[in-house]
Amino acid sequence: MVTLDKIYHAAFVLKQVARKTDMIEAPKLSSDFTMYLKTENLQLTGSFKLRGAYYKISQLTDAQRAAGIVACSAGNHAQGVALAATRMGAKSIVCMPDSAPISKVEATKALGAEVKLVKGAYDDAYAYACKLRDETGMTFIHPFDDDEVIAGQGTIGLEILSQLEDVDVVLCPVGGGGLVSGVAFAIKSLNPDVKVYGVQAENAASMAESIRLGEKITLKSVKTFADGIAVKHPGDTTFDMISQYVDGVVTVSEDEIAAAILALMEKQKLVAEGAGAVAVAAAMFHKVDIKGKKVCCLVSGGNIDVNILSRVITRGLVTAGRNATLTIALEDKPGQLLGVSQIISDCGANVVGVTHERSDANMPVASCFLKVSMETRDFEQIALIREKLTEAGFNIVN
Amino acid sequence: MVTLDKIYHAAFVLKQVARKTDMIEAPKLSSDFTMYLKTENLQLTGSFKLRGAYYKISQLTDAQRAAGIVACSAGNHAQGVALAATRMGAKSIVCMPDSAPISKVEATKALGAEVKLVKGAYDDAYAYACKLRDETGMTFIHPFDDDEVIAGQGTIGLEILSQLEDVDVVLCPVGGGGLVSGVAFAIKSLNPDVKVYGVQAENAASMAESIRLGEKITLKSVKTFADGIAVKHPGDTTFDMISQYVDGVVTVSEDEIAAAILALMEKQKLVAEGAGAVAVAAAMFHKVDIKGKKVCCLVSGGNIDVNILSRVITRGLVTAGRNATLTIALEDKPGQLLGVSQIISDCGANVVGVTHERSDANMPVASCFLKVSMETRDFEQIALIREKLTEAGFNIVN
Repeated sequence: MVTLDKIYHAAFVLKQVARKTDMIEAPKLSSDFTMYLKTENLQLTGSFKLRGAYYKISQLTDAQRAAGIVACSAGNHAQGVALAATRMGAKSIVCMPDSAPISKVEATKALGAEVKLVKGAYDDAYAYACKLRDETGMTFIHPFDDDEVIAGQGTIGLEILSQLEDVDVVLCPVGGGGLVSGVAFAIKSLNPDVKVYGVQAENAASMAESIRLGEKITLKSVKTFADGIAVKHPGDTTFDMISQYVDGVVTVSEDEIAAAILALMEKQKLVAEGAGAVAVAAAMFHKVDIKGKKVCCLVSGGNIDVNILSRVITRGLVTAGRNATLTIALEDKPGQLLGVSQIISDCGANVVGVTHERSDANMPVASCFLKVSMETRDFEQIALIREKLTEAGFNIVN
Repeated sequence: MVTLDKIYHAAFVLKQVARKTDMIEAPKLSSDFTMYLKTENLQLTGSFKLRGAYYKISQLTDAQRAAGIVACSAGNHAQGVALAATRMGAKSIVCMPDSAPISKVEATKALGAEVKLVKGAYDDAYAYACKLRDETGMTFIHPFDDDEVIAGQGTIGLEILSQLEDVDVVLCPVGGGGLVSGVAFAIKSLNPDVKVYGVQAENAASMAESIRLGEKITLKSVKTFADGIAVKHPGDTTFDMISQYVDGVVTVSEDEIAAAILALMEKQKLVAEGAGAVAVAAAMFHKVDIKGKKVCCLVSGGNIDVNILSRVITRGLVTAGRNATLTIALEDKPGQLLGVSQIISDCGANVVGVTHERSDANMPVASCFLKVSMETRDFEQIALIREKLTEAGFNIVN
């Protein structure tokens, strides 16, 4: 059973290793409410997962620790377990699906774990980890459905109340539900007036659906770039705790998550992963009634692949009218590129890419396509460029 | 004159407005030394500049404040002055060159300043600001060459010593020199054993050169994407203070700055602007002897345009072998694209873009170029793909 005692004890134990991450006011993301960010993306290992894993392993017997630790994860739990085990002198094996990005494999190894790549998907890696546990007597550390793990994550609830005494609402990402269970239990035990909501990606809303139906369901597939909370089935303990202590579980779309990631980078100078940004997305897009409230958004992690980050930025810029690509059908005569360049330059935009393509089957033989990518100020500027090009007789195809 | 008294007084005054930004250990950026980050990119307005501006304005007489504030900046100083003046109920006008990015103009306006766009470059905006001051009796707030401004920035030195008592080396970005003057004075006054170094972009090394020559020089041009420290001429006060209190001024290249920005994002989940990342670059590339030392890198700001950030990521990924583009000369017959795709897929890389171009003047009429962009794991994987393609008879042009 999770108790307040256990969470306070976890807080004491975690002093040795976990950072008390900063609580940062985010005025540029506030509107009719005030947003605060609990920055667990700045935790060691880049996410809150270290807390639960470390406290769990610290509560094992010496004999259990000596027999070693086994876990299954392609993400933040892997690094949390690896660092926790290494710090306590325990051997750890982390099973990952062989499709796991090399960067996560390397990060986990660097923290001292042995990584076992298992052919197939997460479920195969999980089955392999259980087999290892049964055959070797190593202790399996569940990523969320475990009292000590939940107590470890709950220490974030204590920190929120000490850093922002008069918080009204806490928004917390939900995958399997370990984080929100611990945080809600700690907060409701100390101050039941504070509202605590869970947030899921709408494409992986296993807990939201389960809570709505009053019974645990299993999703056939979960497809979200918030991979850290892509969980098909709620935990038993976490489902019960969320039913009892959480005021509601809401969902956000992929585009809302991307917008939150971009806003956190641009306005607050923080890198969040998809799962880490869902709470901010829920506040930005008013998924919960927060008008006039002090809202703490838990930014749970920052382990996002920079390739994906780069795509999120690109997409966000296009969505905001700050990047645009025009395709123009040109007559094949001299001076055409010059004419286009001149108009774009006069409008104050910055050309960042040009391709010039000929002999498309859909086009008269003597003409070609010009594709121009530009950094723009806003949609107004893009409209102006389109207008001026059209006025000058250019044929904008797209 | 800057005194320790003044810096302590500034610290007291700044409690009302400035965040005591976190000091974060950066194990993943440490190697034969231990790196700590003083995260002024997480300061309100996204940079340390608020401190000096606020303290300066707070020390004006009521009459001076009532007459209003004028400043000149296209960057962080603008936002610092705007917020500081607004908080103290003073009117502020910030002069900017009309080439200033719209995002900075909007951010400054949002903080309550009136923005005056002046035709031309920084020097023109500066001249206009001085004219305004002379004509209206408003008070001009210099971005760095001012005792109160320097004292305000010096409060960061006090915080560093309180957050990391046994720090050995502090690395600090240098543009005009206000930040490093204040920080070095505070630190050397309290603990002369701590080494303090300034860091400049090598393409804007006005202070480094001036210190080396023992006299202030003016650079003809400064061309660095660390625009926050692109200063042509050192300040009088700052030159004297740096000569006396700073252990050396070193420089970093544009590529080193880009690598530091990428490392901060990827490993530490922090967004830094070019100027904000130079201290980290200096540590990463061992510009100073720091072996075995506890090194505090001051991350002075995070106000980087996301378009530029996106380019830094792209370039960084290519440099690290994690993105690659191959140009292949194809014979114009069916199945060629399929063959290339198969090999890339078999090697485990992810195709993110394809262009297929015909009728280049340098090519036989019946053939074309295929340009494939891929997400790759490392240079080894890229080499493997090249090898397999060549083995299969494909002609890789680039």
